[in-house]
Amino acid sequence: MKLTILGCHSATPRTNTNPTSQVLEIKNHMFLIDCGEGTQVELRRNKVKFSRIKHIFISHLHGDHYFGLIGLISTFQLLTRETELHIYGPKGIKEVTTLQLKLSESWTSFPLIFHELTSKTSELIYEDDKVEVHTIPLKHRVYTNGFLFKEKENERKLDINAVLNANINVAYYRKLKQGADVENEDGILIKNESVTKNPIPAKSYAYCSDTVYNEAIIPIIKNATVLYHESTFLDKNEALCERTKHSTARQAGKIAKKANVKTLILGHFSTRYNGYDVFKSEAKEEFNNVLLAQDGKSFEF
Amino acid sequence: MKLTILGCHSATPRTNTNPTSQVLEIKNHMFLIDCGEGTQVELRRNKVKFSRIKHIFISHLHGDHYFGLIGLISTFQLLTRETELHIYGPKGIKEVTTLQLKLSESWTSFPLIFHELTSKTSELIYEDDKVEVHTIPLKHRVYTNGFLFKEKENERKLDINAVLNANINVAYYRKLKQGADVENEDGILIKNESVTKNPIPAKSYAYCSDTVYNEAIIPIIKNATVLYHESTFLDKNEALCERTKHSTARQAGKIAKKANVKTLILGHFSTRYNGYDVFKSEAKEEFNNVLLAQDGKSFEF
Repeated sequence: MKLTILGCHSATPRTNTNPTSQVLEIKNHMFLIDCGEGTQVELRRNKVKFSRIKHIFISHLHGDHYFGLIGLISTFQLLTRETELHIYGPKGIKEVTTLQLKLSESWTSFPLIFHELTSKTSELIYEDDKVEVHTIPLKHRVYTNGFLFKEKENERKLDINAVLNANINVAYYRKLKQGADVENEDGILIKNESVTKNPIPAKSYAYCSDTVYNEAIIPIIKNATVLYHESTFLDKNEALCERTKHSTARQAGKIAKKANVKTLILGHFSTRYNGYDVFKSEAKEEFNNVLLAQDGKSFEF
Repeated sequence: MKLTILGCHSATPRTNTNPTSQVLEIKNHMFLIDCGEGTQVELRRNKVKFSRIKHIFISHLHGDHYFGLIGLISTFQLLTRETELHIYGPKGIKEVTTLQLKLSESWTSFPLIFHELTSKTSELIYEDDKVEVHTIPLKHRVYTNGFLFKEKENERKLDINAVLNANINVAYYRKLKQGADVENEDGILIKNESVTKNPIPAKSYAYCSDTVYNEAIIPIIKNATVLYHESTFLDKNEALCERTKHSTARQAGKIAKKANVKTLILGHFSTRYNGYDVFKSEAKEEFNNVLLAQDGKSFEF
């Protein structure tokens, strides 16, 4: 699982700070999460192949999270893309995108499929044999979802010597990987644990931006491998959080701790501060394993 | 008159090429012309004060000419701008902008005034005591206007020694500057030319992008100080011009010659070519005084 931060700053794009966008590589997928202005250039800068992006998840319709979407779609069109593109985001995203296409008197050469979200409770919005994506309802000034990307449980691994010794027909190997007990060639029941090993643990990535401190998300993101939680502000500006519906680094740490995640990545920094280390130190007072997002930085888990 | 090119490339923004946008300083105005994705960052990079931009002219609703507009407006809003902002552009620009503001559940703290254009003939769209702006109807795949920015004729300059020798009352100086003959203190008619000098010639800037070769614009841009004319392609790709409604560098040169402008600036380059000098050399076969636009470059006239 590899996460590449294209932009991790709040509000307006600047010469040295990009608004929110990131790419998650998980089980051969390349999921684009949010798409602030300039995202297509950051994708190029980070050498992400456009053709690998088939699913784009938009958290909410504030500009710093989606103003780059129409430009990216238009570029896909100019590059004569044919692969279908799925866009998950709040109701309204289809209307605004299609209006912009209509005004340019163009349409896409590829299927453009919108999945508009309106639910206020967590829902499964994507699933295949390897991965699931669930929404994480967040509390912000407008309708907003985070997203939980979950690998499905991997299959159990055969202990091949034990399997051969137990005289099990090869036709049953599939069932063994799925965790079932099977009968061997002599009609004896073989307990699964005696011939298989635990699978590689499934990983998960919870993306939570933008949101006020909200313990309601904890059951959804519980035990996630990685949590990206917004931390727009520091303690000293906590008063701004309630008004603007954002979080402090400390609050992100509290959520990480209560949700028992393995790693917390902080992002969506306000550009009012001079450095980022203090975000980390404030969050670390609540939760130990804290990393800082940075434009252009990749994390492997 | 100072022109700053923020971006002069066609199609999609890349790490080293920006889509169309430019700033024209003329008679203390700071006119923003077109606004491709990333324009707000280029404005910062070129140290253009946001507060000085009060008029934005959008040629047409293809993304590489206006996808940066909503981001710029949103940033003005975040910076709590109060000054009114006028936007001139094709019908539809108001609907798409207001829809995006509505979806973000925000509105601007400053008056946002749209001037939607639908005329197929040249019209005066802005005027004050120093400057006029006229549309230049262009032929492109969608409804498109170029813009002609014209200084009004400057006042004649007093030849102060001649004025004093002629014994003219100071109350008549204003009339002299306006070109009138006046009576002196002795009741003698003084011919204007005998006591004044020619004014500094009024300058003009014609912006023509995007357009196919179109001689119909020549009467409108006749004798302009500077013509910016798109030159998406070179001779060898002239066949693409008719299909995509763009021009070659040579065609831009022909228009400059026929319109008798002083200087031609080429821009809106396709990124398919390896260099830009050949645009210049092709245009120079038709017209002598050719300059190349370049992202981040300023021209003073």
